[in-house]
Amino acid sequence: MKNSIGQFMADLKHAIQEFEESKIMEEIVPRKFNNQNVNENQDMEGLTQCLSVPLYDLLDRGGKRIRPYFCMLIADLFLQSRKLVYEVAGCVEIIHNGTLIIDDIEDSSKVRRNDQCIHIKYGLDVAANASSYAYFAPLQYFLNKTKYSNEMKLKILQICIQNMTEAHLGQAWDIKWHRSTDYIPTEEQYIKMVGFKTGALLKIPALLSCAVLGIDDQIADKLSNFAEKLGVAFQIQDDILNLIGNEKYKNTKGYLGEDINEGKLTLIVIHSLSKNKGRLLEILNSRPEDQKVIDEAIKIIQSTGSLEYAQKKSEEILQSALKDIDQINFENLEGKQKLRNLALFLIQRNY
Amino acid sequence: MKNSIGQFMADLKHAIQEFEESKIMEEIVPRKFNNQNVNENQDMEGLTQCLSVPLYDLLDRGGKRIRPYFCMLIADLFLQSRKLVYEVAGCVEIIHNGTLIIDDIEDSSKVRRNDQCIHIKYGLDVAANASSYAYFAPLQYFLNKTKYSNEMKLKILQICIQNMTEAHLGQAWDIKWHRSTDYIPTEEQYIKMVGFKTGALLKIPALLSCAVLGIDDQIADKLSNFAEKLGVAFQIQDDILNLIGNEKYKNTKGYLGEDINEGKLTLIVIHSLSKNKGRLLEILNSRPEDQKVIDEAIKIIQSTGSLEYAQKKSEEILQSALKDIDQINFENLEGKQKLRNLALFLIQRNY
Repeated sequence: MKNSIGQFMADLKHAIQEFEESKIMEEIVPRKFNNQNVNENQDMEGLTQCLSVPLYDLLDRGGKRIRPYFCMLIADLFLQSRKLVYEVAGCVEIIHNGTLIIDDIEDSSKVRRNDQCIHIKYGLDVAANASSYAYFAPLQYFLNKTKYSNEMKLKILQICIQNMTEAHLGQAWDIKWHRSTDYIPTEEQYIKMVGFKTGALLKIPALLSCAVLGIDDQIADKLSNFAEKLGVAFQIQDDILNLIGNEKYKNTKGYLGEDINEGKLTLIVIHSLSKNKGRLLEILNSRPEDQKVIDEAIKIIQSTGSLEYAQKKSEEILQSALKDIDQINFENLEGKQKLRNLALFLIQRNY
Repeated sequence: MKNSIGQFMADLKHAIQEFEESKIMEEIVPRKFNNQNVNENQDMEGLTQCLSVPLYDLLDRGGKRIRPYFCMLIADLFLQSRKLVYEVAGCVEIIHNGTLIIDDIEDSSKVRRNDQCIHIKYGLDVAANASSYAYFAPLQYFLNKTKYSNEMKLKILQICIQNMTEAHLGQAWDIKWHRSTDYIPTEEQYIKMVGFKTGALLKIPALLSCAVLGIDDQIADKLSNFAEKLGVAFQIQDDILNLIGNEKYKNTKGYLGEDINEGKLTLIVIHSLSKNKGRLLEILNSRPEDQKVIDEAIKIIQSTGSLEYAQKKSEEILQSALKDIDQINFENLEGKQKLRNLALFLIQRNY
C-alpha cells in the first residue's frame, strides 16, 4: 500500500496536466471573449475583464483540481477513456469556483488560495456577477456545445439543479447556526448540512461522470453516497485542524481556533456542548478575538473528548464511504484502489 | 382607446389577485419549510428564516407583478386559459426577485420598494444565498413538480439558462461601463446591454408561456423580440426620468440625477458625449454629489438635445415592439390590444 502513494501523486499530477492541456475549461468560459462567443458587435474586452479575468484568476491559483480528477478516476473505474469526462470535469470545476467566490462574499473572507478573495480584488459587483455566471455558463455549455442526446442533457441539468438547490439549503442552515447559538443542531443535522453544502460539489462530479459514461443509476447512487460521505469526513477533519492545526494549516491560516472566534457550531462543538454547556457557550457567544479565550474554549473541547469523538466519527464516515465503493459490483480492483487513495488523500491521512 | 385604460387597470388587478390566490409561488418556494419540502429530520425553521422570510419579504412588498400578467396576456392572445401559465408565471416572478436581491447587493443599494434592501435587512450572507436559491428552486420545481414531458422540461430549462447567461453578460457590461468613462459604448452596444440585462426577465416569461401553450417557435420569437424591445424602451424612459423626473419619480428617489452621480453611461449620456465631450465627461468622472454640479450636467445634456433624442429613440423602439406583435398572424385583435396596453403602461405613457 505504501508504495502506491508515489504512484497516486504522480497520476494526479499527470491527469491534471493532461486535463489542463485540453483547455476544456476555456470552451466553457473563454479566457478572452470574441465575436464567436457573443454574436454581436459588442465590447468583448468588457466581458473578458468582468467575467474571464476574475474567474481565471481564481481558477489559475491552482486549486487541487480534485473534482476533475475524481471524474477521471470514475472513468478509470469503468475502464473508459478519461477524455470522456473532460467536459463534465471542466463544468464542475467552474461551478465549484463560482461557489467559492460567493462563499467568500457571504463569509466576509479576505484571503483565498494565498491571494486576495475575488470580491476584494475586483469588487463585490464583479465578483457576485462572475460567480453566478459560473453557475449558468456550464449549463449553457452542456445545452449548446455538447453532442449528448436530449435525454442525456436533461439528466445532466437535473443532476446539477437538484444538487445546487440542496447546496443552498445547506448554506442556509450553516448561516443560521453560525449566527447564534439559540439553536444547537443535532449531530445528524450537522452531518446533513455538510452533506448538502460541501457534498453537492462532490456528488455532481460523481453523478455527471456516471451519466455520461452510461453507468447504471444504482451504481451512480453508490458513488454519489461515497462522494457525499467524503465531503462530510473531509469537513470534520477540517474542523479538527481548525482547532488543533498542523504545520500546513498554521501556515495558511496564521492562527488556530478561527471557528471559535466565529462561533461555529461544528460537530466537535456540538458534541462538547452536549457534555458541558455553560462556559463554552458563553465563549462562543462572545466571538472572542483574544487567543487566551480561544485557547480556553479549545481546552474545554479537549476535556470533553470532543476532538477524539469527531476524529472517530470522521473515520467511521470514511469507512462507510469506502464500503460504498466496495459494494460496486464491477471488479476493477485497481480502479477501486485509486478511489480509495483519493479518499485517503482528501482526508489528509498519512496512508 | 381612452376607455380601455380603466379596463386595463381592472384586468391587471383582477388577474394578479387570482394569481396570488392560486398560491402557486408557495409551491415553488414554501412560506414555511416542512418535512414535505426536505425529506429529512432537519431544522425547517432555519430554512424558513434564511430562505422563505427574505424572499417573501421582497415578494410581498407588492411589485407590480408585470411578468406574471404578461404571461397571462399571452394566454389571452391565443385564447387559452390563464391558469395554464401560472406555473411559468410563478417561477419567473421568483427568479426576477432573486435578480433584484443580487442587483441591490452589486449596486450597494439601500432601498427597494420603499423598504430596506434584503441584504441590509437580513445580512449579505442570507441575501446572496436566497438570491441564487431563487434561481435554482424554480428550475428544480419545473423538473420535479410539473407534469410536462421531458422534451418540454428541456425546452423550459434551455430558455431559462440561455437568458440567464445573457443577463450576466449584460450585467458585466453595465458594471464595466459604469466604473469608468475610459470606454464609451456605442448606442447600439448600450441597447444590446439593456436587451440582455433588462430584457432577459421579460423574454423568459414570453418564451416560457409560448412553450407551455404549445405556440409555434416563430411566433414565440416575435413575442420575445417584443419583450426585449419593451425592456429597452422602459429602461430609456427610466433613464430620462432619472434626470428630469416626474412627481412619482421624485417621491421615490428623493432627488434627481442619481445617474450623473454614479457616472452612468446611459443612452442619453452617450448621445450627449458624442456632441460635447469635455465638461460633461469631467463631471461624470468626478461622481458629483453637489446638486449644482449635477444640474450643470443635466443642462449640458439638455443643450445637446439628448433628452429629446432618447425620448424619440424610446418611442421608435416601442413602435418597433408593437410592430412585432402586429406581425403575429393570429387575428385576436383584443389580445393584441391588451399587449399594447401593457407596453404603453410599462413605458408610463399617458395612453
